Amino acid sequence: MPYRAPTHDIRFLLEHVAGFDRVRETGHYEDAGPDVTEAILEEAGKVCTEVLAPLQRPGDTHPARLENGVVRTSPGYGDGFRAIAEGGWVSLSADPEYGGMGLPIAIQTAVNDMMSGACLSLQLNPLLTQGQIEAIAAHASDEIKALYLPKLISGEWTGTMNLTEPQAGSDVGALTTKAVPDGDGAYRISGQKIYITWGDTDFADNVCHLVLARLPDAPKGTRGISLFLVPKRLPDEAGNAGVANGVSVVSLEEKLGLHGSPTCVMQYEDAKGWLVGPEQGGMAAMFTMMNNARLGVGAQGIGVAEAAWQQALSYGMDRKQGRADGTGTIAEHPDVRRMLSLMKAEIRAARSIALMNAVALDMARATGDEGWRARAELLIPITKAYGTDTGIAVSDLGIQVHGGMGYVEETGASQFFRDVRVTAIYEGTNGIQAMDLVGRKMADNGEAALALIDEIAAEAEAARAEMPELAEPVWHAAENLREGVEAMVALEGKDRLAGATPFLRAFARVLGGHCHLRAARAGGAHATLAQVFVSRLLPEHESLLAEAKEGAGTLYALSLDDLAA
Amino acid sequence: MPYRAPTHDIRFLLEHVAGFDRVRETGHYEDAGPDVTEAILEEAGKVCTEVLAPLQRPGDTHPARLENGVVRTSPGYGDGFRAIAEGGWVSLSADPEYGGMGLPIAIQTAVNDMMSGACLSLQLNPLLTQGQIEAIAAHASDEIKALYLPKLISGEWTGTMNLTEPQAGSDVGALTTKAVPDGDGAYRISGQKIYITWGDTDFADNVCHLVLARLPDAPKGTRGISLFLVPKRLPDEAGNAGVANGVSVVSLEEKLGLHGSPTCVMQYEDAKGWLVGPEQGGMAAMFTMMNNARLGVGAQGIGVAEAAWQQALSYGMDRKQGRADGTGTIAEHPDVRRMLSLMKAEIRAARSIALMNAVALDMARATGDEGWRARAELLIPITKAYGTDTGIAVSDLGIQVHGGMGYVEETGASQFFRDVRVTAIYEGTNGIQAMDLVGRKMADNGEAALALIDEIAAEAEAARAEMPELAEPVWHAAENLREGVEAMVALEGKDRLAGATPFLRAFARVLGGHCHLRAARAGGAHATLAQVFVSRLLPEHESLLAEAKEGAGTLYALSLDDLAA
Repeated sequence: MPYRAPTHDIRFLLEHVAGFDRVRETGHYEDAGPDVTEAILEEAGKVCTEVLAPLQRPGDTHPARLENGVVRTSPGYGDGFRAIAEGGWVSLSADPEYGGMGLPIAIQTAVNDMMSGACLSLQLNPLLTQGQIEAIAAHASDEIKALYLPKLISGEWTGTMNLTEPQAGSDVGALTTKAVPDGDGAYRISGQKIYITWGDTDFADNVCHLVLARLPDAPKGTRGISLFLVPKRLPDEAGNAGVANGVSVVSLEEKLGLHGSPTCVMQYEDAKGWLVGPEQGGMAAMFTMMNNARLGVGAQGIGVAEAAWQQALSYGMDRKQGRADGTGTIAEHPDVRRMLSLMKAEIRAARSIALMNAVALDMARATGDEGWRARAELLIPITKAYGTDTGIAVSDLGIQVHGGMGYVEETGASQFFRDVRVTAIYEGTNGIQAMDLVGRKMADNGEAALALIDEIAAEAEAARAEMPELAEPVWHAAENLREGVEAMVALEGKDRLAGATPFLRAFARVLGGHCHLRAARAGGAHATLAQVFVSRLLPEHESLLAEAKEGAGTLYALSLDDLAA
Repeated sequence: MPYRAPTHDIRFLLEHVAGFDRVRETGHYEDAGPDVTEAILEEAGKVCTEVLAPLQRPGDTHPARLENGVVRTSPGYGDGFRAIAEGGWVSLSADPEYGGMGLPIAIQTAVNDMMSGACLSLQLNPLLTQGQIEAIAAHASDEIKALYLPKLISGEWTGTMNLTEPQAGSDVGALTTKAVPDGDGAYRISGQKIYITWGDTDFADNVCHLVLARLPDAPKGTRGISLFLVPKRLPDEAGNAGVANGVSVVSLEEKLGLHGSPTCVMQYEDAKGWLVGPEQGGMAAMFTMMNNARLGVGAQGIGVAEAAWQQALSYGMDRKQGRADGTGTIAEHPDVRRMLSLMKAEIRAARSIALMNAVALDMARATGDEGWRARAELLIPITKAYGTDTGIAVSDLGIQVHGGMGYVEETGASQFFRDVRVTAIYEGTNGIQAMDLVGRKMADNGEAALALIDEIAAEAEAARAEMPELAEPVWHAAENLREGVEAMVALEGKDRLAGATPFLRAFARVLGGHCHLRAARAGGAHATLAQVFVSRLLPEHESLLAEAKEGAGTLYALSLDDLAA
């Protein structure tokens, strides 16, 4: 069965769970009414189903390759990208002044989710361009904005992020790429960057690289880093892509998945670039881009989970087994039914959290309210890590539902897993997300987290009379999480960091219960699905919180020598 | 760092956790003394490290292929297999009357674990041959035994299992391959089999297929199935491989992993075969082969987990990060340390369970005692499912520890995951294992399970004064599991089956705690590692048991239409 974009489910969650009506009520977004939302989602869904989904297998079997220094993309990818660009889907939320639609980030997130489910390796390209647009809009000069934003928003040009170097991955501060002022207001960039997604294409006129580099005599570590915009081809006087810049693709990585997406080693040799943000202000500018990208990567995980789930359900309902008359299917077997139900419950929780996160960003943008900003920031690492963990867990279950067929590449079940696996690594590993949550995002002594927990507990309290079998466990879970937050805030250093990952997972479990409870108020199958989550997935938060509170003592009591023994 | 066979760890677990001394004390096995055990493990370890581990990457990058109907194996595989055969490693536990060493299954399991860690795709070949040897020894005529066993045990010939057909996977009873008596005491087999691992080689003189087929007018379902031995080449009068039989390889599957192991579609056309076991007695004979193979597959998961863990630890201790003076490594970061410690704790638990399982089989063989037999049978599905789940979970963590490097094929981190993923599917999916546990293996009203739990609780009770921080939680967990067993026995039909997978996982958690507690008595790092397991992994048994007891009500309240909505 081909992928069908889940527009119906997304609209339901926007209206009943994520609180999208509040975004509408701000009046900040012209085109956020129910009819427009529906029309946009349906139109995007059509592109996903008709144009992008057919590119999923060819991207895997015919990987992007490097020929004489030029990237050749997978069959059909050029047409696919043009369909995205011409539909205006590269960046829905960008400023109308530069050709964007100025739509809420919640709509952008929904479209990212659907396009990732259709063809992750191609969708990565516009996702990175979205982040670049955000960073330029927030930090670049008016001249750069006027020159680059229309080209990026229209999809004539595409964008990349260049952080990693061989010796500097999660540890960005160790990077050594140099930038030297050229005396003309611009800079000359030299160095090597690795893991550069979509570092080149054969379907865009230009590729614009945002490159982290170090000015001469800049301090060590992240403080000394600046951000530069370095185009593959230098704009001519008319603002079109002109002569080649000192940027080249050295090689492509051979990866577990995402074969349609070229992952480049980039060489910068005296390449001309322009500062984005102030000197030594690179990390702040990069974080703008990364925060947006992290929400988008969370949506990627959810999108792939949806696609893997659809295929597994279709297989399960089709595959005959166990009845003499040939009518029984494996979807009727309890253990397969269990897997299918858990997949759906997990996707709903992760998608709801991502949309809530996007709504908080939209509310912050519309109202300038600090509470919404803090809420959005708190949710980003949870959306990213839980969304991508869900992509991995659900696609893994998808393989299992297929049995032997899941191990054979031809069915595509394992491609979902191979493709989505990296989402737990790029844009900050999920371990980094967890440290961000218990570190920067709880540096307010957990205030933003506790405010959210208050809401969860209050809603559960209010729902107690109507649906006690759901509301009671959610209320208890919220109270457990409150204790967890207090315990984490009381822990310091390694003791807090050692619990970061289980704490993030526990938080996601409780948020998932909260979202399912909201959905359950719509009754029918929504309430039954909520029951599946609450009875089978929510209880895990207790052992996760216990682990989170453990501290680092035992871990470090086991020395590296002990481990290696 | 190249793979090092964990001979030291295995000897520790045999002596201190798995109770191998009891096997020795039976006097049934001549060569099971500590010195012999050490010598055998060290010698096998040498083959693993020096001969097999170097074949791991070439098997992936140069897959087995089919040329003009003949399988061409990966570079070096022929030499690798000869090293296994010449060392006598194909089947250590086989009967000395036919050239075997008559060693305990515990030693065989240890060697399987190590060889799987070195090169899973090649090790699969002797593993399947071991199963065939068991089945022939237990069910075939003396003539067949005399002809085939020496060839299989010496590795001159290899063996396969032929169960699956396109319409008959987990549902074996749906198979349609036909067997017709040829009037000469033999049979003629016709039909197609799929997913036949090592269905052909270019390094053995003959390939012997054990094929499930249906005699004319046999009843439907599993009752009507018989087992046949069908060689690729018919033995001549001297007992050597002679003329070709009606067996051919139609195609090879393109798989997620295990590229070095050819997975064949086999065509049987009027192929000559001989009955193994009585007519219509195929399933019983097949179960002999499968039970052995399931223990072996569990060991495969553990072996790959060990290899993935070694590589991740080496990477983590090597990769510099986060200190200005360049001395810090990622293994010192709390979240990476957490992953590394959990990997090691999980491997120890799974390996201990597999060795306990093998010891129970050895005790049953040596003493004929029904209690040991029931213990062994109870543990088989747990060893298989938990061992392979551990292989998957640990290799997945291994990718994560590597960060971006984990997604690049060249490091080999993702190959472990790709290779091991199928172990949760073949020889009965892990869902089938869980159903076997709560079905056939607890058809005694849970008696065998409760007897084991009694032992766990009694040992924890005895250790309480000495190490309360470990013994208390294990004792409580055992009591929780006891309630869980009683609850599962009280559930019926779908309600019991819906809880099978979480129940199996809970059982493995409690057994893991028990094994770590035994290991902890050796003190030092063993006790610290046990603390990691008990504080971070054991607690999960509670939510797993809660899920196990849930029944099927909610799952089926969500109809297939609801799921597809």
